[in-house]
Amino acid sequence: MVSMKIDYKKELESASKGMIMIHDPRLLIKLIVRMIVRKLGVKHAAMVLHDLEKNIYVLNISRGETGVKIPKDFARFDDESPLIKLFNRKEYQHLTIDRNAIVSDDISRLIWRESVLPNGNGTSNGDIQKILYEVYDQMEMFNTGACVPAYYQHKLMAILLLGEKYDGTKFEQEELDFFAALASDAAMAIRNAQLFNHLKREADKNHQQYLQTIAVLTHAIEAKDAYTRGHSERVTEFALKISDRMMHIGTLHFSKKFRETLRISGLLHDIGKISIPEAILNKTDKLTNEEYEIIKGHPSRGINMLEPLGLEQDCVSGILHHHERFDGRGYPAHLAGAQLPIISAIIAVADSYDAMTSDRPYRKGLPKEIAISEIKGNSGTQFHPDVAAAMVDLYEKGKI
Amino acid sequence: MVSMKIDYKKELESASKGMIMIHDPRLLIKLIVRMIVRKLGVKHAAMVLHDLEKNIYVLNISRGETGVKIPKDFARFDDESPLIKLFNRKEYQHLTIDRNAIVSDDISRLIWRESVLPNGNGTSNGDIQKILYEVYDQMEMFNTGACVPAYYQHKLMAILLLGEKYDGTKFEQEELDFFAALASDAAMAIRNAQLFNHLKREADKNHQQYLQTIAVLTHAIEAKDAYTRGHSERVTEFALKISDRMMHIGTLHFSKKFRETLRISGLLHDIGKISIPEAILNKTDKLTNEEYEIIKGHPSRGINMLEPLGLEQDCVSGILHHHERFDGRGYPAHLAGAQLPIISAIIAVADSYDAMTSDRPYRKGLPKEIAISEIKGNSGTQFHPDVAAAMVDLYEKGKI
Repeated sequence: MVSMKIDYKKELESASKGMIMIHDPRLLIKLIVRMIVRKLGVKHAAMVLHDLEKNIYVLNISRGETGVKIPKDFARFDDESPLIKLFNRKEYQHLTIDRNAIVSDDISRLIWRESVLPNGNGTSNGDIQKILYEVYDQMEMFNTGACVPAYYQHKLMAILLLGEKYDGTKFEQEELDFFAALASDAAMAIRNAQLFNHLKREADKNHQQYLQTIAVLTHAIEAKDAYTRGHSERVTEFALKISDRMMHIGTLHFSKKFRETLRISGLLHDIGKISIPEAILNKTDKLTNEEYEIIKGHPSRGINMLEPLGLEQDCVSGILHHHERFDGRGYPAHLAGAQLPIISAIIAVADSYDAMTSDRPYRKGLPKEIAISEIKGNSGTQFHPDVAAAMVDLYEKGKI
Repeated sequence: MVSMKIDYKKELESASKGMIMIHDPRLLIKLIVRMIVRKLGVKHAAMVLHDLEKNIYVLNISRGETGVKIPKDFARFDDESPLIKLFNRKEYQHLTIDRNAIVSDDISRLIWRESVLPNGNGTSNGDIQKILYEVYDQMEMFNTGACVPAYYQHKLMAILLLGEKYDGTKFEQEELDFFAALASDAAMAIRNAQLFNHLKREADKNHQQYLQTIAVLTHAIEAKDAYTRGHSERVTEFALKISDRMMHIGTLHFSKKFRETLRISGLLHDIGKISIPEAILNKTDKLTNEEYEIIKGHPSRGINMLEPLGLEQDCVSGILHHHERFDGRGYPAHLAGAQLPIISAIIAVADSYDAMTSDRPYRKGLPKEIAISEIKGNSGTQFHPDVAAAMVDLYEKGKI
């Protein structure tokens, strides 16, 4: 056997190294099980892992030459499963504590010993024989020669199921100790990965909730007016297409986050309108100067309303300046040319296009080609030329 | 020296065990440094850790008998700092690779060696002498006998700074190897903790954004009506006080999450009103049956609007049933008695109290005591008796 001698300490060190940086539990288990099978002369291996949330134990993977396909129903163990009971309950701990494991070859010896010796823990010897027989059956079913538990803070976290060794010999204590240390490191790394993923899902879920609340807010803005319904969503859609087009053409380079910023900005650009009285909003006659001033206040009012969200500067600009013009004759700040944030210029074109092409109580929407020729004709005066060019391009390519 | 012999393998195993389950980086470093000082016969120890986001190296803690207080300005190292350069750059790697560390006692020997031997990596011997002198000065300043680097995937993650040994002897190679393994495990655990905290902060931030967007939505509901402004927030405040009171009295037991659910439900209970025309909403004359039906539709319309949020059942109930009555004569579902979710019963009382005590265009708000006697008088008919009792209790204790 000297030729097959394995330096367990070294193997353990190299296996454990870096385990915690892998945050995919399935990949982790795969790597560990593969290492056991390839490097340590075991025909197959699997791992039963505690599911913290459901308080059950789940068989995670089974790999190797003679690995049995485990029927799905048998892949979950509860507290009453013999193997779990054996490792989890105080009254059975003396059965496995010497070897750090349960080894199928030992079971008959254990049964014999337990039926002869009195035990001092209030459990009848019959009970102990029964669980040993049940564990033996379970190990047979999983084609397992040895089961090695992993504990963290006295709680059973995992069981490593080991098939036979290639060389046909029995598991030595040195090997079982190694597997116990490996199982314990692995269980901790897997728990770490689970916690990580849990937190990541939580962060994602919370972000989705935030975005969905923004969408609800968008619908709230348009709740009363059948004619503007869907306006903010359409503007957002056009704005995203324009930005993608500009990215493609190369007229601008956006950061990775820009699309989301643009989306939020587009969805909320008209939120300030919610405070404009319906009588002004829906007026079909010419507005008085006073009424027009109220209308012109909606971008700033929107920003005030959104202040608690702490939106980033780009997002704020998109909302506040979506009625600016490239020639500086827009509102509220009369920004011109390079002063005008590109996000505002994009929303401005998308907003105008949707306003022109949508039906209103007092007129039908314009055909696309008229709206596009308006945008073309006002490029460099009302509209930012790069943005207008991207919009025209989208139309010509049949993308809007 | 035999009496002081330390089993390094065992110490390393017990130190590394469980490290990754500690998610407070400062605590982790404290534990590791304390262990070094107490168990391993080193007078003081500190750790320099790579800050992933800022790409600087930060001195995290310095503890022990003779630990020097490091001035704050010296606690940050950039890429140009001698120690960082020594461990980070290829051209200096041959200086520390033999020992897994730089030891101050070795530095004169190294300088002599480098000034005699040619080096094959294109660096001048003068350069190498210079950095060694600089490192020596830096180690002097930190009162450090040995510096041990920790790498992860060939990237310098941390440096362990070790003071002198209590017994005055030099660091042996076995010790340095141990500290290298420990530093590497520690650096990984600390990085893990940092990632964890980063993710946790992200999840919290996203959740806060979600709650703040709900608050904005609340203000949007009330944007047009000076008279109802603040209504939803006040209702929420009363509802929370009632639930706290019921918790205190013992009339109900709420889960930990209940307060947040109640808060969201309270803030959004009137969101359906956003789709009611202002002409109906602000009408001071008696409403027609048709108009009253439109008003009565607001709880269901609210639920429809909020559908994309996937709110939990309690939250939905609070909104949908806040106009139900305990005797079943409310709307929309005519729920009575035990059918009525307690969250709806709480919002109903809070809502009525605020409606009674607030000014309206056509009347002044009622005094508190009149509103409370109304609630008392309608307990068991309009209002849930436990909820009404809690509200009366709050008033009598001067808490509203």
